[in-house]
Amino acid sequence: MSVNLKELSKKLNLSISTVSRALRDSSEISEATKKRVKKKARELNYHANPFASNLRNQKSKTIAVIIPAIANTFFSLATNGAESFAQEKGYHVLIYQTHEELAREISISKHLQNGRVDGIMISLTKETFDTSHIKELMDKGIPVVFFDRVAENLQVPKITTDDFESAFKGTEHLIKSGCKRISFIGISEVLAINNNRLAGCLAAMQKHKIKIDKSILITCDEDRIKNKQKIKKLLNSTNRPDAVFACVEEIAISSYEICEELKLNIPKDLKIMSYSNLNTSAILKSALTSITQPAYEMGREAASELFKIMYKKDYVSVGSTIVLKSSLIVRNSTK
Amino acid sequence: MSVNLKELSKKLNLSISTVSRALRDSSEISEATKKRVKKKARELNYHANPFASNLRNQKSKTIAVIIPAIANTFFSLATNGAESFAQEKGYHVLIYQTHEELAREISISKHLQNGRVDGIMISLTKETFDTSHIKELMDKGIPVVFFDRVAENLQVPKITTDDFESAFKGTEHLIKSGCKRISFIGISEVLAINNNRLAGCLAAMQKHKIKIDKSILITCDEDRIKNKQKIKKLLNSTNRPDAVFACVEEIAISSYEICEELKLNIPKDLKIMSYSNLNTSAILKSALTSITQPAYEMGREAASELFKIMYKKDYVSVGSTIVLKSSLIVRNSTK
Repeated sequence: MSVNLKELSKKLNLSISTVSRALRDSSEISEATKKRVKKKARELNYHANPFASNLRNQKSKTIAVIIPAIANTFFSLATNGAESFAQEKGYHVLIYQTHEELAREISISKHLQNGRVDGIMISLTKETFDTSHIKELMDKGIPVVFFDRVAENLQVPKITTDDFESAFKGTEHLIKSGCKRISFIGISEVLAINNNRLAGCLAAMQKHKIKIDKSILITCDEDRIKNKQKIKKLLNSTNRPDAVFACVEEIAISSYEICEELKLNIPKDLKIMSYSNLNTSAILKSALTSITQPAYEMGREAASELFKIMYKKDYVSVGSTIVLKSSLIVRNSTK
Repeated sequence: MSVNLKELSKKLNLSISTVSRALRDSSEISEATKKRVKKKARELNYHANPFASNLRNQKSKTIAVIIPAIANTFFSLATNGAESFAQEKGYHVLIYQTHEELAREISISKHLQNGRVDGIMISLTKETFDTSHIKELMDKGIPVVFFDRVAENLQVPKITTDDFESAFKGTEHLIKSGCKRISFIGISEVLAINNNRLAGCLAAMQKHKIKIDKSILITCDEDRIKNKQKIKKLLNSTNRPDAVFACVEEIAISSYEICEELKLNIPKDLKIMSYSNLNTSAILKSALTSITQPAYEMGREAASELFKIMYKKDYVSVGSTIVLKSSLIVRNSTK
């Protein structure tokens, strides 16, 4: 059992305003009264409504960032970018992890439905084929912005990178380095980033008349151990590829580990290139050629778009897409 | 301007319960009434109290994990451990980053003071010399548990690893590998983990009669760029150390980068050992000898202690410390 402020005031025979000020340690209230009020509040198990003051001005001064995993350099940098922007505006950031599970993404969305935050930035899981849980948030009037892993059908701002173009350029680099049998290793069949990168890769192969073997275009959409088994099977085959184009850094790390195991030399036996923001790329056994997204800037940009919607009461959210450029950083792994 | 449920009901000439059920889309209410209620709610700018249902049962079903940075393998793994435990209990986890700034840690603590979460797990910033903001949270009755970077003076459960013993053992390994001039590179002069690791290192040197040169016991407590300059100065000196014992993985990464720059061979010119949970340790140019903390288990253990306090209403929090063991994984960088 607990009481509210009104009931507490009644028990104390004091006005609500006096009790409220006493609880807030106002200097207008005598020490004796404060002591009496606080004692009674404890006895009656009084708890302040934690959101009363927020409700009053309709702001939680908080935004949520929903990402697949914090243990992923891209997402941790993007989150840092969003935080730097939010902090300038006096906002706190709640970080939620979905661990690539649609069920968790839905659960978190439900958790956020009732105004716990003023706005949401989200990058979808690799399982998210349906976004009705996001649509529900939007229908409740909660501003939503997508970054990197976007749902193309929803009318919200989206911050992406030039996935098709950067994959095209990266694949041309592999071809110029002499690769003739390129394996693209993706993470999902439903994510736009995955499919755009794959499309860019295939387009470059077509342009340069490289034969496309569908059996080496694989998708690692399971857990790390099962994914590694798939990559190992690929690299252990008699007709193994001469290059791996990894869609995300986890795939690249697993590929390096398997090369160790199979005693394959990078880049002599296998060239590896990856979308990656790894902070150890340059000091790997064979420094990793990377397509690096401007992760921090994407996070800032997404936060900036989010605050635009949050601040404008009658802002009509449109499905605008802001595309930032990735950089190809050539290192030893594709020499 | 907005109205509350009572005012909305009055305007509609309906009972509060009918309006409430209409807003929740209850099947007991006719479609026509629902439509009328929702229309009026929009007109009058009615917003549900987002926390009413939580307040009723005094639970936010949420815990907070406060960490220095998500872009740090140890903290991301520990957070994942905490999440796995919380999820089993049906709780959500809010992740907050302090970015090693005491001011942010204080701001987040204030943000959490009024029952936004049911409990807090925290690992302190490297600046946190004073913990009165944590004490304030405890005084408000919010359960707190420390992990890894603990405040030894506060009476709360603490989950740590065997910092002194593991540093002692690691240093003995360096000495057995022939090192005579060991530089310990720390991150803070106020953190217990830092000082316990340093103490373990020095004790091993004393035991083995290795001369201790205080000029190569350095602290990198600034930003990454300034820290790198400090390490570069150390490794570029005429009387440079033959081993670096890094207190955290960031220092190890910087040391590798500087060795690249200065063309120092690891382990021939310099041996490197680090506290690290890096997922690329084994595939670095010289695979990194690591003291690896059971990060995931620490997170789970901390969450488990936190739930114990949260569930027991009259639980008296005691300053118990649970110590988990780290593992020394010897790789090429100290061969």
